[in-house]
Amino acid sequence: MVGNYVDKTLTDDTFGESSYEKAECKMLSYAISRAIENAGEKEENVDLLISGDLLNQIISASFAARDFDFPFLGVYSACSTLSESLALAAMLVDAGYYKKIVAATGSHFSSAERQYRYPLELGNTRPPQSQWTVTGAGGAFIANEGGRVAITSATLGKVVDFGITDVNNMGAAMAPAAADTILNHLRDTGRSADYYDLIITGDLGALGSRIVKDLIWEMGVDIQNNHVDCGEIIYNVIEDEFQGGSGAGCSAVVFNSYIFDKLRRGQLTRVLLCATGALLSTVSSGQGESIPCIAHAVSIEVV
Amino acid sequence: MVGNYVDKTLTDDTFGESSYEKAECKMLSYAISRAIENAGEKEENVDLLISGDLLNQIISASFAARDFDFPFLGVYSACSTLSESLALAAMLVDAGYYKKIVAATGSHFSSAERQYRYPLELGNTRPPQSQWTVTGAGGAFIANEGGRVAITSATLGKVVDFGITDVNNMGAAMAPAAADTILNHLRDTGRSADYYDLIITGDLGALGSRIVKDLIWEMGVDIQNNHVDCGEIIYNVIEDEFQGGSGAGCSAVVFNSYIFDKLRRGQLTRVLLCATGALLSTVSSGQGESIPCIAHAVSIEVV
Repeated sequence: MVGNYVDKTLTDDTFGESSYEKAECKMLSYAISRAIENAGEKEENVDLLISGDLLNQIISASFAARDFDFPFLGVYSACSTLSESLALAAMLVDAGYYKKIVAATGSHFSSAERQYRYPLELGNTRPPQSQWTVTGAGGAFIANEGGRVAITSATLGKVVDFGITDVNNMGAAMAPAAADTILNHLRDTGRSADYYDLIITGDLGALGSRIVKDLIWEMGVDIQNNHVDCGEIIYNVIEDEFQGGSGAGCSAVVFNSYIFDKLRRGQLTRVLLCATGALLSTVSSGQGESIPCIAHAVSIEVV
Repeated sequence: MVGNYVDKTLTDDTFGESSYEKAECKMLSYAISRAIENAGEKEENVDLLISGDLLNQIISASFAARDFDFPFLGVYSACSTLSESLALAAMLVDAGYYKKIVAATGSHFSSAERQYRYPLELGNTRPPQSQWTVTGAGGAFIANEGGRVAITSATLGKVVDFGITDVNNMGAAMAPAAADTILNHLRDTGRSADYYDLIITGDLGALGSRIVKDLIWEMGVDIQNNHVDCGEIIYNVIEDEFQGGSGAGCSAVVFNSYIFDKLRRGQLTRVLLCATGALLSTVSSGQGESIPCIAHAVSIEVV
């Protein structure tokens, strides 16, 4: 379903490149270009790129930034990189420091697998609580004028660690961070949960989504009817991807295509995008550390 | 010399921890605490931490952030992470989004060596153009009032790639990015180079410093007499560290101790801090890529 809303669908997961990493970078570069083009703008008018990704030293973002002649602000918060970038872009534009910013991120199943887990060639099986990193990229164009869809507020999250160490169960690890940021956002803004048509998490997957709804319900707030998770909806059930999609590209693809289209058409008028990130590395897990997580929220409204 | 100005000198490079990575994280956490304490503030008054580091998935920053109960914004631009963090902190505070922000970063020789180069146990020798990653961390406290030292402007840099592929010659790779940002900063602000008492680069080292001075001189601007590089001054010559220090901790230590002390005492009144970052990874180098670099500049003045 989400696939019907994207600008370009690849049939070759190397995008004509010689490595998965280069393919990931090319996807991100393409997403940046399309975000500018779709906004009816030109590269020379862009003031800043805010981007990051899952690869070590965020090389997809850095090498994609090399393709463009505007400044680059590298950020990292794992799979919450999109909402972190959107929040920063909105603040910097609103304050008048920059006029036109592109916020973009992406991920690639095959580059993530070999960096974080096992070489693909091993053909490892996965436990049922695992998720599939999304191969995709998405970008948003944020300007100080024009357009009917606006970022109206943002809540940057704290690091939350519930002591989970199972790197195949990211949804459970990240759900408490999402709950914390969503509850803080509602309290800070004085809004009730039903202010929003949708409260969207990034890649908690099916299990993590149930956990975040429960955690928030325990605090007396009900998001059962207006919560949706990008990881849960990006794949069709028939694709049998266990708990769903994950990765920085997950929310980047779903938000910038499917959700944004519905905002643009007025079918949605108020959404809260709260992408979550698991701030681990293979080294931290190897040294016995649990998984610290974070979630950043931006409210996006038709104005 | 710089060592006389730091808050704490370690004699044990594991800082009592079981791994170099955990030591790096603990140093960063300590630097954050000391930045708050030295500002005469308390943790509960801090609104945001902006931090990043050289380790994969910026785990030092993420795990350090877990120690504190304020939101965390993860950033990455390799060894220019300090000036990126300072620039962002200044903009977010000046715009009124946050009142009190800590910007901090660090690095560790031994964790960087085994991640980027070779296991220490191999005892590899190094070519004469190489630098030594600094084991250290530093943080700054940025608030909307109080204090006589202020960040007065910032110039975020573009990615610049001169096609250098020698990962042992970072100074040469990064110098063009520093030159680009310094020249853009002077043009944007209409300032001449001698407006500043010091124009400080982060970790170009001795060779890179000579290159950046030459590149800028070729464009008709002379910084021969007021340029200094943190990497060049952090070690004593007798320590024989080839081209000098490097790493995110290099500018973090030198700026937040030695330079800040001179600003605080009024011995310096206007400095431009332009830290540089090499945006490579072992994967990008392994796949034959050159080294894209970036530099972010902040001007810091006694007001």
